[in-house]
Amino acid sequence: METLKIVKIGGNIIDNPQALSEFLELFSGLEGRKILVHGGGKLATQLAEQMNISVHMHEGRRITDAATLDLITMVYAGKINKAIVADLQSHGCNAIGFTGADGNTIVARKRPINMVDFGFVGDIISVDTTILEALLRNVITPVFCAITHDKNGQLLNTNADTIASELAIGFSKTFHTELYYCFEKNGVLERVSDEDSVIEHIDTESYQELLKKGIIIDGMLPKLTNCFKAIDSGVHKVCIGKTEMLFDVNSTYTSIQK
Amino acid sequence: METLKIVKIGGNIIDNPQALSEFLELFSGLEGRKILVHGGGKLATQLAEQMNISVHMHEGRRITDAATLDLITMVYAGKINKAIVADLQSHGCNAIGFTGADGNTIVARKRPINMVDFGFVGDIISVDTTILEALLRNVITPVFCAITHDKNGQLLNTNADTIASELAIGFSKTFHTELYYCFEKNGVLERVSDEDSVIEHIDTESYQELLKKGIIIDGMLPKLTNCFKAIDSGVHKVCIGKTEMLFDVNSTYTSIQK
Repeated sequence: METLKIVKIGGNIIDNPQALSEFLELFSGLEGRKILVHGGGKLATQLAEQMNISVHMHEGRRITDAATLDLITMVYAGKINKAIVADLQSHGCNAIGFTGADGNTIVARKRPINMVDFGFVGDIISVDTTILEALLRNVITPVFCAITHDKNGQLLNTNADTIASELAIGFSKTFHTELYYCFEKNGVLERVSDEDSVIEHIDTESYQELLKKGIIIDGMLPKLTNCFKAIDSGVHKVCIGKTEMLFDVNSTYTSIQK
Repeated sequence: METLKIVKIGGNIIDNPQALSEFLELFSGLEGRKILVHGGGKLATQLAEQMNISVHMHEGRRITDAATLDLITMVYAGKINKAIVADLQSHGCNAIGFTGADGNTIVARKRPINMVDFGFVGDIISVDTTILEALLRNVITPVFCAITHDKNGQLLNTNADTIASELAIGFSKTFHTELYYCFEKNGVLERVSDEDSVIEHIDTESYQELLKKGIIIDGMLPKLTNCFKAIDSGVHKVCIGKTEMLFDVNSTYTSIQK
């Protein structure tokens, strides 16, 4: 079975032009089939201020009203996604930018209103890999931003980590699928301020221990939920760390196992 | 040879949500392979005002500085393109949004500085239909916005009419290619204020007459230059008129012939 690498990058790379440029050059050279998934970074917030669009948050999460959805569609699917695609093309990596609406690849459902109305936020209900697979076989690299649609004409803001894991799961039957979450640390850390305390392997059992000890908190919780869902759904390899884990065999990172 | 319809829509539809919605529903039902090309409309100018980006014009044409290029990338490739793609999906038309950077489909060259520096404006130098053809054969409808790239990482603002004609030319050997320029009038008018004075056929000879008489002026000049380039380069049918020409056999429009 051929290998497919799905790589998710976040704000620490997106917000740093130099880091993004260096990463994209290395990513272009990465052998085999690959998909890039990117978050939005700080640009949307900066632009919201510039345009006097008020940002509403609930417990650290953005409420996506209509104006905010417009804004992130412009920033994620327009500015960031197309800059990445053009940059990859300059390195000979033939990329095509995607939202979940493009090719009807990722359908989501507007999150039901419980205690909080998160607005135009979508939870993924299905992934269709047909067109993406045809493109991958034609040596095209799809580049996904964090937007999906509901198949009724509504675009939806969707977590980029979840897009990456759902794509990985969708491809796990046709490819030997590897999922890489790149972020600002070397991996899941035993002690949050000690970069050398990387936990190199986490399995279902040790994960429960880490949860009990309070080592997995805040942003790492949903990330690891995505990781374990992917591993439990047939994804062959799931890794968390700096981008170096993709290019340097000697780098340290966290590997998630069953 | 199979037929491919390439349809270009402009500001009169883009700027009118009701007209756009009605058009996209009809366009979804249009049989056979098809590509949609859209201009930008007034939204970019409105947003430039909102964001205090100054708009520089030269003889009615926008100068595309770096801030303006960012803005139109957000508006054309983000907001407008993805809204169109999501709307088409809701009608069962499987669309994928494109700039010329996506799939390396349209490469342009930054316009050389002569008397005026138009900034990041691109003149098309090549069209690669390989990926688009594979997608069309998979019943995908590509939706192009008016942005290309130079293959060196630079996105470029490119006239949507020209994108439509260059795509049509690119496909003219593999498909029976039809090019439709939709705009606010019923076609090329003999008398500009008389909607009933549509010139139903224009060929190379009568075009020269119309030029001499001063009937083809302003925005119609580059549009007809694109039409004749397409017809002279193997495109099978080129039409100018309202969107009705696509859906109503009894409608009146201008047809361009050799």
